[in-house]
Amino acid sequence: MTAIGVGLIGSGFMGKCHAMAWNAVGTVFPDMPRPRLVHLGEAGDELARRRARELGFERGSGDWRAVVADPEVDVVSITAPNQFHAEMALAALEAGKHVWCEKPMAPRFAEAEAMAAAARKAGKVAVLGYNYIQSPAIRHIEALLKEGAIGAVNHLRIEMDEDFMADAETPFGWKHEAASGYGALDDFAVHPLSLISVLFGRVSRVVCDMAKPYADRALASGGRRAVETWDIASVLMRLENGIAGTLLVNRSAWGRKGRIALQVFGSRGSILFDQERANEFQLYVTSDRPTEQGYRTVLIGPQHEPYDAFVPAPGHGLGFNELKIIECRELIRRIGGDAAARLIDFEEGLEIERAVHAMARSHQEGGWVEVQA
Amino acid sequence: MTAIGVGLIGSGFMGKCHAMAWNAVGTVFPDMPRPRLVHLGEAGDELARRRARELGFERGSGDWRAVVADPEVDVVSITAPNQFHAEMALAALEAGKHVWCEKPMAPRFAEAEAMAAAARKAGKVAVLGYNYIQSPAIRHIEALLKEGAIGAVNHLRIEMDEDFMADAETPFGWKHEAASGYGALDDFAVHPLSLISVLFGRVSRVVCDMAKPYADRALASGGRRAVETWDIASVLMRLENGIAGTLLVNRSAWGRKGRIALQVFGSRGSILFDQERANEFQLYVTSDRPTEQGYRTVLIGPQHEPYDAFVPAPGHGLGFNELKIIECRELIRRIGGDAAARLIDFEEGLEIERAVHAMARSHQEGGWVEVQA
Amino acid sequence: MTAIGVGLIGSGFMGKCHAMAWNAVGTVFPDMPRPRLVHLGEAGDELARRRARELGFERGSGDWRAVVADPEVDVVSITAPNQFHAEMALAALEAGKHVWCEKPMAPRFAEAEAMAAAARKAGKVAVLGYNYIQSPAIRHIEALLKEGAIGAVNHLRIEMDEDFMADAETPFGWKHEAASGYGALDDFAVHPLSLISVLFGRVSRVVCDMAKPYADRALASGGRRAVETWDIASVLMRLENGIAGTLLVNRSAWGRKGRIALQVFGSRGSILFDQERANEFQLYVTSDRPTEQGYRTVLIGPQHEPYDAFVPAPGHGLGFNELKIIECRELIRRIGGDAAARLIDFEEGLEIERAVHAMARSHQEGGWVEVQA
Amino acid sequence: MTAIGVGLIGSGFMGKCHAMAWNAVGTVFPDMPRPRLVHLGEAGDELARRRARELGFERGSGDWRAVVADPEVDVVSITAPNQFHAEMALAALEAGKHVWCEKPMAPRFAEAEAMAAAARKAGKVAVLGYNYIQSPAIRHIEALLKEGAIGAVNHLRIEMDEDFMADAETPFGWKHEAASGYGALDDFAVHPLSLISVLFGRVSRVVCDMAKPYADRALASGGRRAVETWDIASVLMRLENGIAGTLLVNRSAWGRKGRIALQVFGSRGSILFDQERANEFQLYVTSDRPTEQGYRTVLIGPQHEPYDAFVPAPGHGLGFNELKIIECRELIRRIGGDAAARLIDFEEGLEIERAVHAMARSHQEGGWVEVQA
Repeated sequence: MTAIGVGLIGSGFMGKCHAMAWNAVGTVFPDMPRPRLVHLGEAGDELARRRARELGFERGSGDWRAVVADPEVDVVSITAPNQFHAEMALAALEAGKHVWCEKPMAPRFAEAEAMAAAARKAGKVAVLGYNYIQSPAIRHIEALLKEGAIGAVNHLRIEMDEDFMADAETPFGWKHEAASGYGALDDFAVHPLSLISVLFGRVSRVVCDMAKPYADRALASGGRRAVETWDIASVLMRLENGIAGTLLVNRSAWGRKGRIALQVFGSRGSILFDQERANEFQLYVTSDRPTEQGYRTVLIGPQHEPYDAFVPAPGHGLGFNELKIIECRELIRRIGGDAAARLIDFEEGLEIERAVHAMARSHQEGGWVEVQA
Repeated sequence: MTAIGVGLIGSGFMGKCHAMAWNAVGTVFPDMPRPRLVHLGEAGDELARRRARELGFERGSGDWRAVVADPEVDVVSITAPNQFHAEMALAALEAGKHVWCEKPMAPRFAEAEAMAAAARKAGKVAVLGYNYIQSPAIRHIEALLKEGAIGAVNHLRIEMDEDFMADAETPFGWKHEAASGYGALDDFAVHPLSLISVLFGRVSRVVCDMAKPYADRALASGGRRAVETWDIASVLMRLENGIAGTLLVNRSAWGRKGRIALQVFGSRGSILFDQERANEFQLYVTSDRPTEQGYRTVLIGPQHEPYDAFVPAPGHGLGFNELKIIECRELIRRIGGDAAARLIDFEEGLEIERAVHAMARSHQEGGWVEVQA
Repeated sequence: MTAIGVGLIGSGFMGKCHAMAWNAVGTVFPDMPRPRLVHLGEAGDELARRRARELGFERGSGDWRAVVADPEVDVVSITAPNQFHAEMALAALEAGKHVWCEKPMAPRFAEAEAMAAAARKAGKVAVLGYNYIQSPAIRHIEALLKEGAIGAVNHLRIEMDEDFMADAETPFGWKHEAASGYGALDDFAVHPLSLISVLFGRVSRVVCDMAKPYADRALASGGRRAVETWDIASVLMRLENGIAGTLLVNRSAWGRKGRIALQVFGSRGSILFDQERANEFQLYVTSDRPTEQGYRTVLIGPQHEPYDAFVPAPGHGLGFNELKIIECRELIRRIGGDAAARLIDFEEGLEIERAVHAMARSHQEGGWVEVQA
Repeated sequence: MTAIGVGLIGSGFMGKCHAMAWNAVGTVFPDMPRPRLVHLGEAGDELARRRARELGFERGSGDWRAVVADPEVDVVSITAPNQFHAEMALAALEAGKHVWCEKPMAPRFAEAEAMAAAARKAGKVAVLGYNYIQSPAIRHIEALLKEGAIGAVNHLRIEMDEDFMADAETPFGWKHEAASGYGALDDFAVHPLSLISVLFGRVSRVVCDMAKPYADRALASGGRRAVETWDIASVLMRLENGIAGTLLVNRSAWGRKGRIALQVFGSRGSILFDQERANEFQLYVTSDRPTEQGYRTVLIGPQHEPYDAFVPAPGHGLGFNELKIIECRELIRRIGGDAAARLIDFEEGLEIERAVHAMARSHQEGGWVEVQA
C-alpha cells in the first residue's frame, strides 16, 4: 500500500495535536503504513510555510482550499474554528478526500446535517476527533460492560468540568456570545456523549437546566456586557435502552482541569473513571468475597489495548496526545477498509449534536424533551 | 442546674446510637450537665428492661406511653420506625416533654405538618436527628462559605449513595411497598437536604427523575412481586438564592457504603467533601499561587470545632457515632435556652419534607415543580 | 458477675480517653458487665473532685495512692506522664489491682523490666494502651495474613509520622531533653512495633539512623539550647521469622497528622493501611484476573469485627476514641478470664521496649544490633 | 543549523522509546532543528532494515559498528542490553559521535569509569537516559525546593517498586544470576538516585539490607536453581549536605507497577510525588492558614515547564514516552552548546553508580559504608 497523503488545516491546539499524531503513528504502530505529511493550511502563506516546516509537512499554503485541492492529499485533518468545519468538510469530501474533523461538527444543526449528508454521498471516511473513546481505560471499561462484569447496567452519571471560564475577571469574549453556541453544552457535553454513545447507546429524552455564574463581564472597550452563554449545564436523561442517567458539565468549576468523571452502576458491580487520572479506573464487583469487596484501582498496562504499542511495562502512563495517536491509527485502519475501526463518524456525530440541541431546547422550554423530535 | 431526665423509645440501630450519645455526652463535654438516663421504651416489658439495663437506663417499659408519661423524663428520644414518629412526638409534646426525633419526620406530609404545629404550640424543643450537619468538616465548610473563602457560590452538586438495596436477590420487603414512601428519596434525600439547609438555604424549584434497577423481587412465599419504590432519584434544583444545583441519590449503588459527596463551586474556589472519608475535606482557592493551585486535603483537627472535645491531636479521626454525641450536646444547649445551638427543628425539618414531596410530584407529573405550591 | 470497679489516674489527653471508654463500653458491648467508675486521681483534691464529676467517677482524690488503695477499685487506668508509670503500676499490682497502663511502659528499660516482673508476680492482668491493634481494619488484616490471602509475607514497611514538633519556632521543652528519652523512637516507634508484634512477630536485628531537623531551639528565658532528642528515626530490621522490613518515624513531618502507614508484601498479593484513613485498607491479590488486578479500597463495615457493635451499616466510620472502647472490652474480657482477649500485656510490651532500646543503641554504635543482647 | 543525524542501536522497549522521541521532538518543540533519523542497528540485516523502516530511519544495519561509523550520524542512541553499553559508547565516542546511552551505565564499575573517561577525552556530549528527571512535576518540585517553598529540607524518603519479579512461578532467568548485577539495586536504585542527584545532591554514606522473596526458582530444564540476586533493597543514607534519608526498592512488590514515591520534608512544608500518578504532585506549606493546611494535589499544566509544548490546557496529562521527548530536546540543546540543558552526563552518572556499588558493599560487609571509598 502506498503512503497515505495527509493534509492539515489549522495548526493551533488541536492542529498541533493532529500533527503530532500523524508524525508518531507509524512509529508507534509499525504494522501501519507510515503516512506522508504533505500539505498544511494556515492563515497566510508565510505562517503556513513556517508551520509546515515546524510540524513536519512538505509544504504549506495560506489558503486551505489548496490543501483540499492537493492531488497528493488523501485525507484532510480539519482543526480550524468550529464555524468553518462545515464548509471545509464539504469541500474536502467533494474533492474526494477522507475527512478527520475536530469536534463538535458545527454550531448549527443544519450544518451538521449537511456534513453527514455529504459524507454519505461521497462514500469517503468522515470521522470526528472524539479522542477520549480511544483511551485504553475506556476501551477496557467497554469490554467489561460487554462481558457483563458488573451485570446489567441500571444507572449512569457523567460529569465534565474544567475551570478555564471560572475567573470572574476574564473579560467578555466570543465564547460569551450566543453566536458561539450554548456554552458548556457544546464545549463539553459532546465529549461525555461520545463516551455514552460508545459505551451505552443513544440518548432518548432529556431535561436540562443551564446557569451562568457571572451575569456580565468587562469589555475591553470599557463597560460591561451581559453574558449570553451558559457555563453550567445539568441534565437528567434517559437512554434508548431505558437506563436513567445524569450529565453534568461546568466550564467554570474552579479546581477542575480535565475532569471527565464516569460512574456506572450495574446489578453486580460498578465502575468509576476520571480523565484527570486517565491511567487508572476503578472496578467494584460483587463476586469478590464480601469482607474484601472494595473499588479496585486498576492501573492501565499492556493488557489494556493498545497500551503495549506505547510501553511494554504496566503503570507507566499514557498522555492526552497519545489518545490522538490511537485515534489516528483507527482512522488509517478505516481508510484501509477496516469497518471495525473504533471511530465516531459523521453519522454518529450527528446523533451527539442532536442530543445537545435537545438539551438546549429543554432549557428554553422548561421540561422534558425527546431527542428525536 | 438539675440533671436532664432522658427517655428513649426504641433501641435498634438509631436507638443504640442515641443511647451511646446520652451515655457519653457528659464526659466528652464536661461543661454540660450530665444527663440522667431514666426510662427506655421497647416492645414488651422484658425486652425493655433488658435493653434499659444494657444501655444504661434506670428502667424500661413495654409501652412507650409510660416513657412519655414518666415525670422524671424531660426529653424523649424517638427512634421507633418512621410511621410511629408523629403519634409519639405529639404525645411527648403534649406531655410537656422536649423531643429529639429521628429523621425523617413521617411518611405523610400532613403528619409532618401536625408535628410542626404541635411543637409550635407546646413551646418545647422539638428537633430532628440530622447528624451529618454536626460534622466538624461540615461545620468548618460552613464557616469557610460564610467568610467567602471561595467567593460567591454559584453551583452545587450533592450525591448520597449506598448499596444496601443493590442486590437483585434481596427478597421483596416493606421498603419495596409504596406505603413505605418513595424509596431513595425519603431514605436519603433528606440528609443532603439537611446539609443544603444549613449551608445554602432552601430549595425553591425541582425537576426529578426516579428509576428502579429491578422491576420485581422474589417473595418469600414464592413468586415475584413488582417493586413499588424507586432506588434511584436524580434531581435538578434551584435554591431560593438562585444557585443551580443537583441532588442525586441511589440506594442500589454497588460499592458505595456511606457516600454523601458534596461539590461546591464559587467565584474564587471550590470545596469537596465525602462522608466516606468524613475526617477530611478538600479546598481549592484561587488565592494560592497559580503554579501550586490544587485541592488541599485538610484533615480535621482540634481547630475544627468541636473535634478537640474528643481528641486534642489532629488527624486522629472521629466516627459516625460521635456526630450524634455532638448533636446531643447541641440539644442540651438548646434545652438550656441557647437559641444558637445548631439543630434542625421541626419547622426546618418540615421544609425538608416539603422539598422531598415536591421531588416526588415532579417525577409523577414530569416537569419542574415549585417546592412551595 | 458484680460490676468491675474502675480507678483512673490522670485526666488529660489519654485520661479522658480512658474515661470515655469506661463510660461507653457497657452500652456498646451489652454482653459485657457494665463497669462502675469509682475513683479518679489527679493533682490536688479540688481538681480531682471536679474531674471525677465531669468524667463520671464517683469520687476523686488528690493523691493517686488513694485510688490504688481504694477497696472498691478492681482495675486502675494509668494515664499519668511516662516517668510515673513504673511507680504507679508497681503500687497497683502490689495492692492486688489489675492495671491498664498507657504506652510506653517507662523511660528506662530497667523500670519496664520491673513492671513486667511485678505483673508476673502479682498474677493480675497488666496490659498496655496499644489501641491501634484494636482497629477493625488491623484485625481484618491480621485475619487475611493468617489465612494466607497474600501468600507468604516477604517484606514489610511501616511509617509513623506527625508534625507536632515540625515548627522550628516551637521553644525548647522537656521533650527536647535527653532525660525524656530518644525522641521519635519512644514517642512513635512503639506503636508500629505493637502492630508488628501482633501481625508478624518479634524484631531480631536492627540498624537505626536518627536525625534532628533543628539543632537548637529558643529558650523561654532567652538564648537557645541544643536539642538532645531526635525527631526522626529510620530503621532497617529483620524479624525473627526472617522478614526484612523498615520502620520509619518522624515527629517533625509537616503535613502528617496521624499517619501510621503499613505496606505488607507477600507472594500472592499485598496490603496497605494508613491510620489517617483508618476506616479503610487496601488489598491487592493475584487471584484477581490480571486485566483487573488493582488495589481494592475496602471500607470497614459490620463484617469486620467488632465494627457492628458500633454501627450496623458499613462505611459509616469509627473514630480514634472507639479503638479505646474496643481495647476496654478486651480488658474486661481478660479480667473475666478470657486468655484470648486481644491485648499487649507487660510481657509483650517489654519486648517492644527492648526493640526500641536496641534501635537507639544501633544509632549510637553505628551498625547492626541484635535486639536480644 | 543543519539537521542532526541520528543513529539508534537497539529497537526493543527503550529503542522504540528513543525512536518515538526522535520522531516527535521536532514537532513538539518547533524551535528545535528537526533531527534526521539516519541509521538503525539491530541483530541481523533483515531485522535492522525492517525496524529502520518501521521506526522511521533511512537505513538499517545488522552490525552496530556500521551505525557508529556512519558519517551522516552525529549522535548515537544506545539501547542495547547493559553489558554492551561500555563497548558501544566507547566506540561511538572514539568515532566522534555524541552518545545518548540508556541507564545504567554498565554492570561493572570499572566499565562505567572507562565510559566517563572516554567522554572526558572525546569532548563530546555523553549523557544517560534518566527520563524521570524530565517530568514537569519533578522540574517544578525542583523549582519549589530552590526557592525555599518548604524551607530547609531535613528529611527525604524515596521508594521505587514494581512487581515484574513478584511471581514465585516465574522461572529462573538471567536477572537471577549474579552476573547480571545485584538485582533491584541496579534495576531500580539508579532512578531514585537520579532524582536525588538533581534535587538534593550526592549521597555520602549508606547502610543497606537486601532480601530475596524466593530462595530459588524453577529451571526450564527441570529442577530448581538458587536465586543469586536480591529483589528487595532497603537503604539508610546520608547526603553530602547532611540530609538523612531512606531509599527503598522492590521489584517483587505485588500491586506496584511504576511507583517512584518521593516524600520530602522541610522546615516549612513538605512535598509528595508518585510516578504512578505522574501528572500531579502534593504540596503542604505552613504559610496556609492553620485551619486549612493540607496537602494540595496540584495537577500539572502549562505553567509547569515544558508541559505547554505538548498541551496548552492543564490537567490533560503527559505520558511516560513524553518524558523521553523532553529528554531528547535537552540533548539537542546540549549538542547545540547549551550547558544549562538538564541531563545526567557520564560524569554524574558515574556518581550514581558509585552509590549503588557502595550500597551493595554495605550489604556484604554489614554496616555503614562511605560512598567515596
